[in-house]
Order: sequence, then C-alpha cells, then structure tokens
Amino acid sequence: MPQISNYTYDEITIGQTATYSKLIEARDIQLFAAVSGDVNPVHLDAAFAATTQFGGCIAHGMLSGAIISAAIAMELPGPGTIYLGQTLRFSLPVKPGDTLTVHLQVTEKKDKRRMVTLDCKVFNQHDKLVLSGIAEVMAPGEKLVLQRPALPLVRIEG
Amino acid sequence: MPQISNYTYDEITIGQTATYSKLIEARDIQLFAAVSGDVNPVHLDAAFAATTQFGGCIAHGMLSGAIISAAIAMELPGPGTIYLGQTLRFSLPVKPGDTLTVHLQVTEKKDKRRMVTLDCKVFNQHDKLVLSGIAEVMAPGEKLVLQRPALPLVRIEG
Repeated sequence: MPQISNYTYDEITIGQTATYSKLIEARDIQLFAAVSGDVNPVHLDAAFAATTQFGGCIAHGMLSGAIISAAIAMELPGPGTIYLGQTLRFSLPVKPGDTLTVHLQVTEKKDKRRMVTLDCKVFNQHDKLVLSGIAEVMAPGEKLVLQRPALPLVRIEG
Repeated sequence: MPQISNYTYDEITIGQTATYSKLIEARDIQLFAAVSGDVNPVHLDAAFAATTQFGGCIAHGMLSGAIISAAIAMELPGPGTIYLGQTLRFSLPVKPGDTLTVHLQVTEKKDKRRMVTLDCKVFNQHDKLVLSGIAEVMAPGEKLVLQRPALPLVRIEG
C-alpha cells in the first residue's frame, strides 16, 4: 500500500525545501474548466486562442496555483496542514505539454499556532518562472503516516 | 449559441460588482484531486476525514481559489483579462453540498497597463465568509463577444 506522511511543526526547519512536479496536459485544462466553471475560449477554443497574443490555448493561471497547493499538501508540510493564506504572482503563461515544478522553501516559523511561511516558486521545463508567491500554513502537530488514496480516474467525454 | 462577453478597461468603474456561484459537489473534490495531484486523505478518504477536526471530507482550499479565478474570467472583467496577482486568506472549510458565491468589487484602476484591482470575497450558503483576497488584473482593451464553449463533460470512473 503506498503511503503518505508529513513533517510536524517540530520537525520543520528554516531553509527546508521540497519540490513537486506535474506535466500539464490538454486534459488538465479541460478538467480545470469543468471543476471551476471557467470555460474561457482562451483555454478551450483552439481557433480563438490562436488569434490571441498567446498563439494557442493556455492553462488557467489558477491551475498553477493548484499545483502549489498540492505541493504543500502532499510534500511540505504534507497531510494535516491547514492552509491559512497564499499570495500568487503570475509571470508567464503555461501551455499544454509544459512540465511545472514547484519549489518550496521554509522561510519562517512562529510557535504560536504552529505557523510556517513558505516561499513558493513554479518553474516550467525551460527553468522560466511562471508563478511565485508566499504560503502561510498551520503545520501539523502530530506525525501522520496514512494510506495514500489513489488518484481519481477521470474520463473526458466531450 | 450562448455567448460570453467582457467589460473593457474603459467600461469598468470603481465600485462595480459581480457575483458568481457554484455548488461544490463531492465529484468536484475528486476532479480537483485529479487535476492537481493532491490526493490528501482529508479530501478523499471519508473514514479518515471523519476522525479529523472537520468531521468529514472537505474541499481543497484552492478549489475555492479556482472559483474566484472563474468569477474574474467569466464575469468581471471577463474574457481577455490577464491575471497578474491574487492574495487568498482561507477562513472556513468547504464541504460537499456547500454553495459558494464569489462577490467581486472593483476597488482601483490604474491607466498604466490597464490595471484593475478587485476585492474578492467568497461566502457559503450560510453567508459565512470562507475565503477573501485581492485580485490584480490587466483588463481587456477590446470588447469581445465570443461563443461560450460548453462545459467539458467529465465522468469519474473510480
């Protein structure tokens, strides 16, 4: 059984890092449209998107934000983390076929409320920064080692 | 044919508002897990989630962030908007069956780069604030009236 575990507040150190990567496929853009309701033509209509400054369909900016939140929830601190706040600064568009890598680094700890601040940077496969920001979380108080749920199997039918 | 249109920078006024609502279903949580890779048990494992402070599965915080981005992209300013930045402050958990309503209000315009600042608040069906933040966007320079793409049809298979 694959497992997932976390870093507790006491285990976390200033400067600690983690990474998390994801290939962004055309289907991810369709899934993000379905889950958010954002069916903007620049994301879903290839003919229209080709006429824009982007020259083709681009991913929703907040899809890259979702990858940051996944990095925090899955890697550092991991399960049991409570998300308090996030800033996001969008720098470059993301296209289908891009591989995004989130770099997290712990920059601050505050014992009150077990608050941890993380610097978040998302790079594409050309090492260009596409998104940056700062996350504030309440780190887990207890060590958790849990069964890792399977990724839901999703089929796009149209 | 359903259409989608936007507000250009010149049409946008300080104080202008828009709303956008979405019912969050269990399937949205599964879709968000699939698209982000965040398969945290608190979102997907009902038996584990029942043992947490939340008493059951909760939605990913960034799913509510995705609803804000959809409100901006679909309603105000709408198509042609370039997302520059977003702050997010998570206040309350969201559970399957909750209906989220985003309230957007224009608070600032800067002619340079057609920059528009929007106050963003997300309430649940009990009028409780679940998420708040500030968005910075580059508003569209041109009026667009476009065919509205259909919501992708997605089936969850397991």
